[in-house]
Amino acid sequence: MSNTVQPRTLSGFMELLPDRQLQFEAMAEVLRKVYSSYGFYPLDTPVLEAAEVLLAKGGGETEKQIYRFTKGDADLAMRFDLTVPLAKYVALNYGSLAFPFRRYQIGKVYRGERAQRGRYREFYQADIDIIGDGELDIINEAEIPAIIYDSFTRLGLKRFKIRVNNRKLLSGFFNMLDSGLEAQDIMRVIDKLDKIGIDKVRAELAEMGMTGEAVDMVAGFVGRQGATGEILKGLEDYRGRDELFDRGLDELGAVVRYLGDFGVPEENFGVDLTIARGLDYYTGTVYETTMLDHPEIGSVCSGGRYDDLAGFYTNKKLPGVGISIGLTRLFYVLDEMNYISQDRAPSSVDVLVLPMGDDLSAPVSFARVMREKGLKAQIYYETKKFKAKMAYADRIKAPFAAIFGEDEIAAGKVSIKNMATGEQETVDYDRAAELLLERAGRTRGESIIEEKHE
Amino acid sequence: MSNTVQPRTLSGFMELLPDRQLQFEAMAEVLRKVYSSYGFYPLDTPVLEAAEVLLAKGGGETEKQIYRFTKGDADLAMRFDLTVPLAKYVALNYGSLAFPFRRYQIGKVYRGERAQRGRYREFYQADIDIIGDGELDIINEAEIPAIIYDSFTRLGLKRFKIRVNNRKLLSGFFNMLDSGLEAQDIMRVIDKLDKIGIDKVRAELAEMGMTGEAVDMVAGFVGRQGATGEILKGLEDYRGRDELFDRGLDELGAVVRYLGDFGVPEENFGVDLTIARGLDYYTGTVYETTMLDHPEIGSVCSGGRYDDLAGFYTNKKLPGVGISIGLTRLFYVLDEMNYISQDRAPSSVDVLVLPMGDDLSAPVSFARVMREKGLKAQIYYETKKFKAKMAYADRIKAPFAAIFGEDEIAAGKVSIKNMATGEQETVDYDRAAELLLERAGRTRGESIIEEKHE
Repeated sequence: MSNTVQPRTLSGFMELLPDRQLQFEAMAEVLRKVYSSYGFYPLDTPVLEAAEVLLAKGGGETEKQIYRFTKGDADLAMRFDLTVPLAKYVALNYGSLAFPFRRYQIGKVYRGERAQRGRYREFYQADIDIIGDGELDIINEAEIPAIIYDSFTRLGLKRFKIRVNNRKLLSGFFNMLDSGLEAQDIMRVIDKLDKIGIDKVRAELAEMGMTGEAVDMVAGFVGRQGATGEILKGLEDYRGRDELFDRGLDELGAVVRYLGDFGVPEENFGVDLTIARGLDYYTGTVYETTMLDHPEIGSVCSGGRYDDLAGFYTNKKLPGVGISIGLTRLFYVLDEMNYISQDRAPSSVDVLVLPMGDDLSAPVSFARVMREKGLKAQIYYETKKFKAKMAYADRIKAPFAAIFGEDEIAAGKVSIKNMATGEQETVDYDRAAELLLERAGRTRGESIIEEKHE
Repeated sequence: MSNTVQPRTLSGFMELLPDRQLQFEAMAEVLRKVYSSYGFYPLDTPVLEAAEVLLAKGGGETEKQIYRFTKGDADLAMRFDLTVPLAKYVALNYGSLAFPFRRYQIGKVYRGERAQRGRYREFYQADIDIIGDGELDIINEAEIPAIIYDSFTRLGLKRFKIRVNNRKLLSGFFNMLDSGLEAQDIMRVIDKLDKIGIDKVRAELAEMGMTGEAVDMVAGFVGRQGATGEILKGLEDYRGRDELFDRGLDELGAVVRYLGDFGVPEENFGVDLTIARGLDYYTGTVYETTMLDHPEIGSVCSGGRYDDLAGFYTNKKLPGVGISIGLTRLFYVLDEMNYISQDRAPSSVDVLVLPMGDDLSAPVSFARVMREKGLKAQIYYETKKFKAKMAYADRIKAPFAAIFGEDEIAAGKVSIKNMATGEQETVDYDRAAELLLERAGRTRGESIIEEKHE
C-alpha cells in the first residue's frame, strides 16, 4: 500500500508490550485489592472537565502543563491529578455522600511536561483519600501507614521506609525559633542535611542571619534520629513553648500509637523531622515512602492531612487525609532497578490447547471445562505444523500445552505438557484440571516484584 | 468563602455516585474475567495520539466528533474507538507480537456528539480482537459467540440472542440478483422488514426497478427464519450460483458447527440474514446481540471479521475478528430497564468495625485479621454516638457491624450485628471471620443484574 501513515506513539506516553502490560495490570490489581480491603470506594471521574472548574484553584506550576483546548464554545481541560476532580465530586455530591467518605481512584492524568527519560505526560496515579464533614479524627491519619505498608508488601517490596512528620510540629518549631526567616528558606537548608552534613547546615543558617541559639535549636531538632519512641521522647523537651508544636506532637504520638496493632513493623516506619511536603496544602501528618536501597528515586508514595479539600467549590469545611502512588513512574523505576521479576511474569493463559487434527469437539469442550474451573484456556486454531504450535506456546509463555491427537480423543484423554520441564503425561480431564489448578493457585499469589540486593 | 467556582461535571460525561460505581466496576470485572479466561492479553493504549496517526484512515462521520487540539506544535487527538489504536499498536509492534494476537481493552473513548439522554461523549468500550498474521482460521470466528454468551450470562442476563450473519453470503446473494441496484440500497429496504412486513418490502424493491424474479429471491432469502439448522439447509438451495455465496455458506456452517461444544444454547443464538453491519470494513462473519425483551435498544455487542486491520499503517496483511461492548451505554440502558439489582448491590465493606471507647488496639487488630482473610474491613474512627455510628453503617450498606465495647474487649470477643436482620451475637474472632466469610463468599459470586419480565 502506498498511502500509509507511519504508526507511532507520542513520546512521554507509556505503551507496553503484552507481557509487560500483564505485569503492570498485576501491580494495579494489588493496589485495588489493598485499597478495597480498607473499605475505600472505587471512583471514576471524567478525564475531561470544564477548564474553569479544573483550574478553579488557579495558578501554580502545573497550569502551564495542562492540556487545555476548546471544542465548539466549551473550554475544556484534561485532568492533571485526581485531587481536584475529587474536590469537585465531593462538593457536587455533598448531600449524597456518607462521611467520612473513603474513595480510591486509579486513573490516568495528563501533564504536558518536557519529555525526558522516566517522565511521562500520561501517567497513572493511584490515590486514596478519606474526607470528613467538618471534622476528621486523627486516627484516620494513623491508618495511612498501614495501607502503604500493605500495598508495598503485597507488591513484593520489603526494603522500604514510610517516613512521617507533622506540619503542625514543624510550623510550631519554626515559631519557636523567632528567627525572622521564612519557613521555606529554613526548610531548603534543612533539606540538604543528608548531602552536606550538619556543620555546613549550621554555617548556612548563621549566614542567613539566624542567631546562635536558634541554630543550636535547629541542629538539636534535626539531629533527633533513631527509633520512633526515642525521637518522640526527645521532642518532649520542646513541649510547652508553642501551642501549635504541642498539638503536632500529640498528633504524631497518636499516629504512632497503634502502628503495632496495624501490623506495621518498626523497620518499615520512621519519624523524619526533615519532611515538609510543600508548605501550603498540608496541615498535619505528612508521609513519604522511600526505597532503602534506592534513595535516589525519591518518594514513591506521598501525601498528608489537609484541612480544606474543596474551599474553591464550596463553603463546606472538608478536611481529609490522602496519599498518592505514581503508578506509571513506579513501574518505570522498579523496572530500571531490575526489580520486576522475569521468572514470575504472569502469563495470559494457564493452558494453551492444541488440536492436532480437524475434529475440534474435544479440545473445545476441554477448554470450556477448564474455564468453568476458573482457568485461562486458549485454543490454538491455526493449521500449522506441531513445531510451530509449540513455538507459539513458548512465545506466549504458556505454562502448559494440552495436546489433542487422535489417540487422546479416542481415549477421552489429553496430553498435558509442562512447557518449562518438557514433561508430558496423558491424563483424563479431571487430572488435567488438578495439574493446571495446582500451578495457577501457586503462582497467582506471587508478587511480580523481586528486590535485588547488590 | 466568596470566590467559589460552581462545581459541575460536563454534560455527556458519566460520573456515578459511590454505590453505583461499585455496580459499574462489578460489570467491568466480569468482562475482564471472561475475556482473560479465553487467553486475551489486556492492553492499554494512550488516550491521546498524534492526530495524523489517529485519523490516518480519514473521513467518516466520526471525524467531526473528534476532540482534536494542538499543544505547542503537536497536533493531538483523543481516541474515538479502541480499534484504530489497536491497528497502530499491531503495526508498530509487529515484530514483537505472537500471532494470532489476542487482546482485550476496556477503556474510555471520546466523541463530541450532540449531548442527549443516554448518549455519552466519554464512554467505555470493552473490546476483544484476534489478529492473524496474513491468515486467521475461520474457527476463531466460531469462538466469538461463546465469549459473548459467557460475558452476558456472567453479567446475569438470560434473555438475549446472539445474531450472526456472513458478509460473503450477503454479497454473494446480491451478486446473484444481478439487479443493477446498490447493495446498500437493497439492505436499507430489507432492514425495514420487521417494521413494514414482507409485502411492503416487495413493493419497495419493485419500485426501485428490481425484476419480479429478483424480488422473489429476496423474499425467499430473508424469509428464511427459524432454527439454525433449518436456515442453513434452506440456504443450500442457492449453492453453486455464486462462488462468494458458497464460501460464505461454508463459513457460516463452520461457525455454527461447534456451538454446542462451546456451550452456547440454541435459544441464545440465531442466524439472521438481515444483519449487514456496515458494508465496507467487515468481510466475513458479523455479530449483533439483542435483548429479547428490549429490541428497541438495538445491538449491545457487535462486531465481525475483517481482512485488513491496519492497511493505513503497514503493508502487512492483518486479518482479524473482534467485538465491542459499549459498557457505559449498556450500564445506562440496563439501569433504565431496572435490571440493575438493588438487593444484590455490592458493598464497599464486608464489615464496619465500631470501637465504642478510646482503646483502639482490639478493633484495629480485629480489622487486620479480617483483611488477612480476604475481607474488606473498615474502622469507623469518629467520636460519635452509637446511633450515628449505626446510621453510617446503614448508609454505606455494610452487611455487618463489628462492635467493640469494654465487655467485648475484656473478653477478647466481638459483637457481630447483621445489619439486615438486626441479629447480634458476641463471638470470638474465628467465629466472626466465619460469619463474614460465609456471606462474602455467597454474595461475591452473584451477578448484579436481575432481568425483570413484565
